[in-house]
Amino acid sequence: MKTLTEYLVFNTKQRKEFVLITDKIEELVKKSKIKDGLVLVNPMHITAAVIVNDNEQGLHKDYLNVLEKLVPYNAKYFHNVGEDNAASHIWRQLMGHQVVLAITNGKLDLGTWEQVFYCEFDGQRQKRVLVKIIGE
Amino acid sequence: MKTLTEYLVFNTKQRKEFVLITDKIEELVKKSKIKDGLVLVNPMHITAAVIVNDNEQGLHKDYLNVLEKLVPYNAKYFHNVGEDNAASHIWRQLMGHQVVLAITNGKLDLGTWEQVFYCEFDGQRQKRVLVKIIGE
Amino acid sequence: MKTLTEYLVFNTKQRKEFVLITDKIEELVKKSKIKDGLVLVNPMHITAAVIVNDNEQGLHKDYLNVLEKLVPYNAKYFHNVGEDNAASHIWRQLMGHQVVLAITNGKLDLGTWEQVFYCEFDGQRQKRVLVKIIGE
Repeated sequence: MKTLTEYLVFNTKQRKEFVLITDKIEELVKKSKIKDGLVLVNPMHITAAVIVNDNEQGLHKDYLNVLEKLVPYNAKYFHNVGEDNAASHIWRQLMGHQVVLAITNGKLDLGTWEQVFYCEFDGQRQKRVLVKIIGE
Repeated sequence: MKTLTEYLVFNTKQRKEFVLITDKIEELVKKSKIKDGLVLVNPMHITAAVIVNDNEQGLHKDYLNVLEKLVPYNAKYFHNVGEDNAASHIWRQLMGHQVVLAITNGKLDLGTWEQVFYCEFDGQRQKRVLVKIIGE
Repeated sequence: MKTLTEYLVFNTKQRKEFVLITDKIEELVKKSKIKDGLVLVNPMHITAAVIVNDNEQGLHKDYLNVLEKLVPYNAKYFHNVGEDNAASHIWRQLMGHQVVLAITNGKLDLGTWEQVFYCEFDGQRQKRVLVKIIGE
C-alpha cells in the first residue's frame, strides 16, 4: 500500500467562492504514483465544503441563491455570539462537506462532467484542504 | 491490497426514480474476494446521487416532496439556459451525493435497515455509477 | 494493509441529540496501530448521521432549528404510517450522513476546529455506529 498526504491552501478574495481544484487533485494523484485507490478530499475548516459538480457559473449562482433562501446568511443564529458565520457552518453540511474520489489506471476516475470544487463559505482568510491518497 | 473497479449502468423510465442497488454492490463485493475493506459507490453524473436509507416507497415520495418544496424542479435557475436540470444538480448535493460502505468478513457491513439506492434526478438516459472496492 | 472494525453503541436521553465522539475515534485509531490510512465512521441506523463540525452548543441549536424549518419533524409524511420518524430519515440526508477521516502519523488528521459528532434524530433507543479503519 502506498499513501500520499498533502494540504492545499486557499485564501479566497470573496467571502463565498467556488474554486475549481480538479487539476490540483490530478497532479497529486500523478505525484503519488498510485494506479488504483481512493482519494479523500476534505476541508480542514468547518465553514467550507468540497463537492463534485458542474463547472458552470450559472449553477454556482443557483447554489448560492438556494442556500441563501434556505439558510439566510445574515439571519440571527445562536452561534453568532461574537461570530457571524453560523450559516456557513450549515451551508457546508447541506452541500455535503467532503468527497472521496477513485483512481483507476493512475488517473482520477471521473465522469465527463464531474469536476471537483472547493466551496468557500467564509473566506478572505487562509484555509486548508487535506488530500489523502491510498492505494497501490 | 486488492481492488475491483466496476461501472453500473442505469437508464430509468422516470425522470426521477429511486433504484435499489444493495444486491448489485453485494455481488461485486463477492466478486472482488475482498474480506475487509471499503467500497466507494459514486454516480459519475452530477444530476444523480447514491444514498443509504430505507427501502420504503412512502419515504421515497417524502424525499421527492421535500426536495420539490425546498428547490422547485421547474423554477427559474441561472443554469437553465438551454438546459432544464439545475434543480437535479442541487438535489443531489442536498441528498449527499455518494456513499462509502464497509466490507467485513467478505460482506457489506450494513445495519438491518441500511439499503443502498441510486437516486436519479434527471433520468431517461444512460448513466453510470462507479464502484471501487479496495481491501484485502 | 491493516484494518480495524469496531461498533460504537449509543442510547441518547433525548430524541434529538449531538454526541461528541472525536476521542472515541482517536482511541480506535491508536488501537489499530495504523499510521497512515482512512477511517469510515458510518451510522448503521438510517435516522442518524455522523458529521464533522464545531463543538459549540449554539450551533447545534441552529442545526436543529434549520432542520425543523426545512423539514418539520411532526408534519404529515407518507412514511409515517405506523411510524413517526420520516423527518429524521430526511434530516440525516441533509446533514450528510457519514464521514471519512484521514490518519497521518498515527493520529486523526483534523483541522483545529474539526470535531466528530454522532447526530441522533430518533433516539431513546440503542443505535450502532460502524468504525472501519484501513491503512498501514
